[in-house]
Amino acid sequence: MKTEIQKYFETLQDNICRALEKTDGKGKFHQDIWTHHSGGGGRTRILMHGDVIEKGGVNFSATSGILSQNMAQRMNVEPVGYFATGVSLVIHANNPFVPTIHMNVRYFELENGKYWFGGGIDLTPMYVIPEDGIRFHTGLKTICDKYNPEYYPKYKKWADEYFYLPHRKEMRGIGGIFFDYVAEDEQTTKQNIFDFVQDVGDFFAPFYTETMNLRKNTPYTQKHKDFQLWRRGRYVEFNLIYDRGTLFGLDNQGRSESILMSLPYEVRWLYDYQPEPDTEEAFTLSYLQPKDWINLSQTLKQ
Amino acid sequence: MKTEIQKYFETLQDNICRALEKTDGKGKFHQDIWTHHSGGGGRTRILMHGDVIEKGGVNFSATSGILSQNMAQRMNVEPVGYFATGVSLVIHANNPFVPTIHMNVRYFELENGKYWFGGGIDLTPMYVIPEDGIRFHTGLKTICDKYNPEYYPKYKKWADEYFYLPHRKEMRGIGGIFFDYVAEDEQTTKQNIFDFVQDVGDFFAPFYTETMNLRKNTPYTQKHKDFQLWRRGRYVEFNLIYDRGTLFGLDNQGRSESILMSLPYEVRWLYDYQPEPDTEEAFTLSYLQPKDWINLSQTLKQ
Repeated sequence: MKTEIQKYFETLQDNICRALEKTDGKGKFHQDIWTHHSGGGGRTRILMHGDVIEKGGVNFSATSGILSQNMAQRMNVEPVGYFATGVSLVIHANNPFVPTIHMNVRYFELENGKYWFGGGIDLTPMYVIPEDGIRFHTGLKTICDKYNPEYYPKYKKWADEYFYLPHRKEMRGIGGIFFDYVAEDEQTTKQNIFDFVQDVGDFFAPFYTETMNLRKNTPYTQKHKDFQLWRRGRYVEFNLIYDRGTLFGLDNQGRSESILMSLPYEVRWLYDYQPEPDTEEAFTLSYLQPKDWINLSQTLKQ
Repeated sequence: MKTEIQKYFETLQDNICRALEKTDGKGKFHQDIWTHHSGGGGRTRILMHGDVIEKGGVNFSATSGILSQNMAQRMNVEPVGYFATGVSLVIHANNPFVPTIHMNVRYFELENGKYWFGGGIDLTPMYVIPEDGIRFHTGLKTICDKYNPEYYPKYKKWADEYFYLPHRKEMRGIGGIFFDYVAEDEQTTKQNIFDFVQDVGDFFAPFYTETMNLRKNTPYTQKHKDFQLWRRGRYVEFNLIYDRGTLFGLDNQGRSESILMSLPYEVRWLYDYQPEPDTEEAFTLSYLQPKDWINLSQTLKQ
């Protein structure tokens, strides 16, 4: 099954890159093939300065080795041989109304037979557009509900907690779903979980290309661009201070340019910026807290 | 002595801000007074968009409280009451030939009577100019040698190891000195160490204002500006991933805007940028490794 899973992730990367290039219309992915010091390797694909995408990275990797003491301790397992494969992507757009998005789907296997799936997808609008958030969360809930009615509430909450900057007391965006250490149990088979992970992976391209098309022509001014550059600072703070994937990768002597492709092209740090009350900037910040996006949809419809 | 030390740090902040404003000629420090949740507080002073300084912060603080379990563990002491005071500064300039600089001088005291001084000063040129590095290290060595011939080699090495990005295999700049947990012993008194810390604190303003004056009118092109923005990305990576002061401050629920004032205004992340061989950019990168700056001076003179 390991081969099948790896094959799916490789194809997923191909499909996503093709869909993004087509929708962008101008940008092309540049590919770097790399090998990991302890075994395996990956394909890093970066698109810079497209028509819609300013900087986007879609990584596939399949690596193996022996868990370091650090890693084993963090995972609460013995330092045995491992195999890890997955796709990880982050897209930053030119237009401040096109949200930043991140997705990661991964499979981890130890030589003692233990395995698990993990992953997540979360949306980071520079300006929150409630319709996009509702479409995003409704789409994710539909996928989750197909497998287990407990998935969406559980994984949505996990994302709310994970994509959070304690020092800012705010989420980096409007969340999504996050899951880890998912393996077969009395209620589900390995194939079933793999199907779920595939549905999550396959959700990305149609959702995001639709969003690109919806928002890429929204007119914006320098004020919007300034706010986007400031919002990106929070994205960098999250990734470098808290993101486990980033810190794990750097710690594990991964290829730093592949890991840090998640950082935006241009970023700004102001000092103590606070938006004026009742502005679209203040509106966005008020949405960077856990929200019930499914019922928000009903509230907005009324 | 605690009061005297705190008073010195307050005056140091005043003197530094006055000297920087005078040399900048345009920028003025904006002050925010804040209180810490567990006791004490500070004065954060920020200068934005000056003639020479793009973004600079000079913080004074004197806080007290009970050490958290985390902090106590890290310091290898019991979780007792503490008092901490110091000055911390980071200056980022407009002109890519004016280096970024950081200094921190601090005093820590536990209610059980234990105390120590710590601090450091390091230079991060966007473009390495050997003369500036030599002047910087020679000045620091002169101060160190006044107190103990072992200080400079020891504290210089500590800075080389501390201001290092393992995932980039490079230093964030050209080092300087770094010291911590310095207290009286058979060879030195508390007053002696305090004198040393004052000499380090007093070194900053004359050194940096001279450097500002020397380099502020160096002509530069877009290529130099681009390289500066890219170099700043490494500064951000260091501060958010490795800098103990930053992580300690955020972890201890410090005022995040005061802690993160160290981040530059504008920053860029490219993908896998490598300078061409034999360019001034490649020259700079070759200097981001531990160097013997004192003997470098003799090498360059020959």
